[in-house]
Amino acid sequence: MAKEVINREENYSQWYNNLVVKADLAENSAVRGCMVIKPYGYAIWEKIQAALDKMFKDTGHVNAYFPLFIPKSFFSKEASHVEGFAKECAVVTHYRLKNSADGTGVIVDPDAKLEEELIVRPTSETIIWNTYKNWIQSYRDLPILCNQWANVVRWEMRTRLFLRTTEFLWQEGHTAHASKQEAIDEAEKMINVYADFAKNYMGIPVIIGKKSESERFAGAVDTYCIEAMMQDGKALQAGTSHFLGQNFAKAFDVKYTSKDGNLEYVWATSWGVSTRLMGALIMAHSDNNGLVLPPKLAPVHVVIVPIYKGDDELKQMCERAEQIKKLLAAKNIVVKIDDRDNVRSGFKFAEHELKGIPVRLAIGPRDYANNTVELARRDTLEKCVVPVAGIDEYISKLLDEIQNNILAKALKFRQQNTIKIDSYDEFKEKIETGGFFLAHWDGTPETEAKIKEETKATIRCIPLDAEVEEGKCMVTGKPSKQRVIFARAY
Amino acid sequence: MAKEVINREENYSQWYNNLVVKADLAENSAVRGCMVIKPYGYAIWEKIQAALDKMFKDTGHVNAYFPLFIPKSFFSKEASHVEGFAKECAVVTHYRLKNSADGTGVIVDPDAKLEEELIVRPTSETIIWNTYKNWIQSYRDLPILCNQWANVVRWEMRTRLFLRTTEFLWQEGHTAHASKQEAIDEAEKMINVYADFAKNYMGIPVIIGKKSESERFAGAVDTYCIEAMMQDGKALQAGTSHFLGQNFAKAFDVKYTSKDGNLEYVWATSWGVSTRLMGALIMAHSDNNGLVLPPKLAPVHVVIVPIYKGDDELKQMCERAEQIKKLLAAKNIVVKIDDRDNVRSGFKFAEHELKGIPVRLAIGPRDYANNTVELARRDTLEKCVVPVAGIDEYISKLLDEIQNNILAKALKFRQQNTIKIDSYDEFKEKIETGGFFLAHWDGTPETEAKIKEETKATIRCIPLDAEVEEGKCMVTGKPSKQRVIFARAY
Repeated sequence: MAKEVINREENYSQWYNNLVVKADLAENSAVRGCMVIKPYGYAIWEKIQAALDKMFKDTGHVNAYFPLFIPKSFFSKEASHVEGFAKECAVVTHYRLKNSADGTGVIVDPDAKLEEELIVRPTSETIIWNTYKNWIQSYRDLPILCNQWANVVRWEMRTRLFLRTTEFLWQEGHTAHASKQEAIDEAEKMINVYADFAKNYMGIPVIIGKKSESERFAGAVDTYCIEAMMQDGKALQAGTSHFLGQNFAKAFDVKYTSKDGNLEYVWATSWGVSTRLMGALIMAHSDNNGLVLPPKLAPVHVVIVPIYKGDDELKQMCERAEQIKKLLAAKNIVVKIDDRDNVRSGFKFAEHELKGIPVRLAIGPRDYANNTVELARRDTLEKCVVPVAGIDEYISKLLDEIQNNILAKALKFRQQNTIKIDSYDEFKEKIETGGFFLAHWDGTPETEAKIKEETKATIRCIPLDAEVEEGKCMVTGKPSKQRVIFARAY
Repeated sequence: MAKEVINREENYSQWYNNLVVKADLAENSAVRGCMVIKPYGYAIWEKIQAALDKMFKDTGHVNAYFPLFIPKSFFSKEASHVEGFAKECAVVTHYRLKNSADGTGVIVDPDAKLEEELIVRPTSETIIWNTYKNWIQSYRDLPILCNQWANVVRWEMRTRLFLRTTEFLWQEGHTAHASKQEAIDEAEKMINVYADFAKNYMGIPVIIGKKSESERFAGAVDTYCIEAMMQDGKALQAGTSHFLGQNFAKAFDVKYTSKDGNLEYVWATSWGVSTRLMGALIMAHSDNNGLVLPPKLAPVHVVIVPIYKGDDELKQMCERAEQIKKLLAAKNIVVKIDDRDNVRSGFKFAEHELKGIPVRLAIGPRDYANNTVELARRDTLEKCVVPVAGIDEYISKLLDEIQNNILAKALKFRQQNTIKIDSYDEFKEKIETGGFFLAHWDGTPETEAKIKEETKATIRCIPLDAEVEEGKCMVTGKPSKQRVIFARAY
């Protein structure tokens, strides 16, 4: 089973693709760049959704749904949005098919051409602010704190399962506020929600920062982001939160009457994470045996494999397994009993490791007699023998320990691969092996562009918690007041 | 507040539209035929989703996600699917915009034309069966029991919020089976799940039946449906479940090796319900004061309105309200305290009635002193005074009673408006005032078409539980073995 996945050290990129496909997470579809998210992958996504959705609601947000299509003209309304946003979009031009004259199939009906083309949403700021215009009159209508779970389409030229697909699933929060400070606070609150989620659910430590001007979202005044380190030392942007100023309010003429009776433009934020998180989850923790899932996002926490000869033993082991399943279920631990009789237990073990199930229990006749089980941890691959008595308590604690260990391991890896660097020559050499580089930068887009061109590294973010430190730009020697993070990125 | 909604008796259709908009459920968007589902409407949809999703999982189904786009050629593969399915689809022909030469906006880039056009899914049988082809080799891979929650697009000419929109949200189950009987059982199981849900969550009694041949889903061997009666006596098809035979397996060449080693085509079902259920929910129960929501689908169960003069009294009433909220929260009852100080309580009452909140509590100084509250039921509009002591038990039981009463009322209404009819002349007269008509039909599409043309009534279904009863078709006098249900429908 696991042998179908190439070693990570041999070819990281192929290892990733193998894993996504072999662990039944997703596959490419018949439509270029669009993926099929398979049941096991989708079950993980559902856990991500449920946890985030609760965090959004706990911070006062509500869900809504806005149209899939956006009139083409809307994109021209916010100048920097149309200028900066990729124009690779799916364009709907017709609304009807008809039978072909030769009767062999269907063709697009030329008589059914739309007056104005519709764009399949690549993001929804424009259609949402066009809607908010009708929702907002007075300061009493504010804030609006909406989120939507939706699919979006960006016509990517080079796609990779989860990391960059033409269609992807995401959530996009769009909020409207009466004051600038309230909107800034909201944008910062949500990037912190994302960081908490990444750390406490995904087991991925992230750096919270602001994007440099050239990496900012088109239409944003400020883009906050969380950046995670993958096991090849590359960065992955795992979520963004934008302070949009009054740009979209001005583009769509959204004003409110303040307490003082003045007519003012509304302040905005937007923030999102996507199925890209699945890619981060896979690349941050997995090994050559397959996925390593943090228990909080694992669809199945414990798999039990009966070890037996003949039907009588199978029946005995399964009875014990059912007994344990019941104990664990009472602690909300999801257990699967793998009693397939057409594959060997070695095959099963490999498959469960591939799928990243946090804990495996094996029960053979000796375990049965001793009232024990053999327990294997997916994160460390350690095995031990555990008594059945008290196993619910034991595994409950173990799952917490695994959750913490996965985070600790990722944090240690990031620390080991994050260095302060002051020499551009050294940077150019070391960037080849990956990692995060804390370096001084003169703050100009020109220097940023030069570094990107020469090293393929970008400024991932200007960390929010960076200390003020006088220094000199590693390229130009010009003064700088804090270090920023450079890395190659997905 | 409620005065903004026209009376149901005056104009049923306008009453419905008023209600959807005024109760903040949904509104039309800038895109023709596409709606915005507002937070309050979406909160109800989320409750519908959560309950159905649990029922699907409890019956062994898993969720997955398939692409939004379907290559045009896929539609030609299943002959009756392409023939019978509406060809009003959104067609993507290009994948890029570019700045217009005059710099005033964006235009579709003529160089970015797709080789093969993509259709925004109107339903996903074709793309899913094209995927299943790779998932199925042996009988061990069966059954596949997948569902997806998704948006779909059908280019409707006449649209109405929730009932018929160009884009709508739905779930579509797509299952694959090794035997014909297993697939039929699945299709029947799922129509029963829908019927249970309609009855026990939505408070809507439904008739389970099969569609006549001319009303069948394009590509289905049999279409099962649930039909609900709205308060104007018209029928609304609330869900369908299709036994697809081997039609899609043959179209996409999906075969499996049976236990006996034979290569056989796979059997299929598909089943779905959509945001149309929101329309059914609104039209089945609401009155001239607004929505009437069954407690199981109400985002807020109880609203508490403090009645006060001055800040001291407001503070006192709110303290009592908080105390009650805490008591109710312990029983999973969602409570909202409406302490707005810029509107009168009469305005609040009307608004909460409009939004269908099942129970309203008002607390004034006298209630405070007596340790009581004034309670108003939304379904009956009855009021009574209730002691605070034991109010959690009281309301918990009351919510069950309201849930049951809403169903009982709908059931009674349907019974009163369902009649057996044997004369076509009488039918033509009575159909004008609505209702379900149990009539004999000779089983031919010709008679069915004649009735539809002359009366706008269609065969809603051939009820599954109908008794065998020898009779004569009300139109042609030809023999018939059971009555079918005729009605005008949404």
